[in-house]
Amino acid sequence: MIVTLAGGVGAARFLKGLRLVKPPRELIAIVNTGDDTVLHGLHISPDLDTVMYSLAGADNPETGWGLAGETWQAMAALERLGGPTWFSLGDKDLATHLYRTGRLAEGGSLSQITQELCAGFGVEITLLPMSDQPVRTLVTLADSGQEVGFQEYFVALRHEVPIDGLRFEGAATSTPAPGVLAALAEASTIIIAPSNPLVSLGPLWSVPGLADAVKARRSNVVAVSPIVDGAALKGPAARMLTELGHEASVVGVAKLYKDLASVLVIDHADAHLANQVESTGMRCVVTDTIMSSPEVSAALASTVLECGS
Amino acid sequence: MIVTLAGGVGAARFLKGLRLVKPPRELIAIVNTGDDTVLHGLHISPDLDTVMYSLAGADNPETGWGLAGETWQAMAALERLGGPTWFSLGDKDLATHLYRTGRLAEGGSLSQITQELCAGFGVEITLLPMSDQPVRTLVTLADSGQEVGFQEYFVALRHEVPIDGLRFEGAATSTPAPGVLAALAEASTIIIAPSNPLVSLGPLWSVPGLADAVKARRSNVVAVSPIVDGAALKGPAARMLTELGHEASVVGVAKLYKDLASVLVIDHADAHLANQVESTGMRCVVTDTIMSSPEVSAALASTVLECGS
Repeated sequence: MIVTLAGGVGAARFLKGLRLVKPPRELIAIVNTGDDTVLHGLHISPDLDTVMYSLAGADNPETGWGLAGETWQAMAALERLGGPTWFSLGDKDLATHLYRTGRLAEGGSLSQITQELCAGFGVEITLLPMSDQPVRTLVTLADSGQEVGFQEYFVALRHEVPIDGLRFEGAATSTPAPGVLAALAEASTIIIAPSNPLVSLGPLWSVPGLADAVKARRSNVVAVSPIVDGAALKGPAARMLTELGHEASVVGVAKLYKDLASVLVIDHADAHLANQVESTGMRCVVTDTIMSSPEVSAALASTVLECGS
Repeated sequence: MIVTLAGGVGAARFLKGLRLVKPPRELIAIVNTGDDTVLHGLHISPDLDTVMYSLAGADNPETGWGLAGETWQAMAALERLGGPTWFSLGDKDLATHLYRTGRLAEGGSLSQITQELCAGFGVEITLLPMSDQPVRTLVTLADSGQEVGFQEYFVALRHEVPIDGLRFEGAATSTPAPGVLAALAEASTIIIAPSNPLVSLGPLWSVPGLADAVKARRSNVVAVSPIVDGAALKGPAARMLTELGHEASVVGVAKLYKDLASVLVIDHADAHLANQVESTGMRCVVTDTIMSSPEVSAALASTVLECGS
């Protein structure tokens, strides 16, 4: 079994490559749920859905979220009613949230329901939420000191405002979802996907026991840097690293991951920083990490698997 | 002020006629919420929505429920996921439930939210839910003794199975919604719309204080029989009356309403039963009650207003 610790878009792209070099039945992804939110009474799991839609080949490559061939009748009608439409939910996408919310109300667990949804979408890689309990990423806005939900920061405020704090509400009383600790214990390789280290992977480390289970396997843990040449390919990772006192570079990523992973995979663009990465105690591997095609993703996945074995 | 006690389709049709003979700002409808249900986490108020959509001219005359020009992307996607689709929710209709559920979660009351939705749909008649607290109509199936929610009986089982009991869960601790008792006290005429006496109007009488407030105005209360020639124009009213030990006739309706209303308006088809109606202590008025057009509805409304003044 290969276990990937995953956020949304970057992790999804990596998993599509990994699937080309390993049978999907041997792959498990443990996915961030700190971004989850309840809107209009519906339970929305953005990272789980992004990974699921992407692996199903049903994702919308233009937006980077939601489903391809989507329609927007519900949102348009909600807008006419003066309801909140800052978080766009397509008509087809709504079905996922209706299903999840209904099953949660029936007493289903998020991990059970995720399996059911994956079966419905024909996704063969096993997706595990990091926890079945709610853990909510809260962001402190630097200007006002106000704490807002992650989606409010990320979507409503378009991550354009400075922040100075992160908190994972509910983490202290959460537990890893069923299967998470066993997967980490039994994996031949554990991969930290090229996702935002603070708000995609940070929530995972906040779940008691999860980071320790990764550290216990450090020699088989390989991280892929989401930062290339000081920037994130997508999203606010670089900005957040700087604002929260880290370095927006592969060296900053290495400092965050050095106790969790034994190898950091970085892009050729950062080859000159390899020595600095290795000075943190990690082995540094340089390759192409910009996943511009499934073939590049697959080559990256192969390299990662070689590092971790 | 004219106050109409209302269920769904029959009441909506009556109100469209009433609106032609009285300014909408002088009209209040107190609407059944015993049919309300939570599906997929969304709060659905079928009678409020039927009346609202109908008064907005946005109803779907073919189905008798939902919105005209509706699309079904969400339900189709939910069906592909194996989710429950027995209660069809169109994409545009979903927006109403998203709005209502979101506002309830924010702490809004059903009556406040109903006002907001009516403003969004341009409905000028004031719609009041019978109560802001949940009152749920439960139906006992005769064959199994099982108690099911009203929508399960009405939609999933298509009201094709015999029943032998009704219960209004939550009624004992509910109170009339703000404005309900004042409207009943101040109305010049109170009209019991031609709705199912048991499951559209029965829930209203189950809210403590509401039936007494109607009885106190009995001389100004006019009921319109939903039963014509022993049958309901729509829905299971006749069958339910028989199964629950009442007569499926205008006489049976009179016996149910005699303490609440002083007048029962019946159709010409039942003129031969006028004496039997009057023997219950109600005045009986015979006119056209089959609302085949807005003009017939308006004429019926005029007759009702004459009776109640």
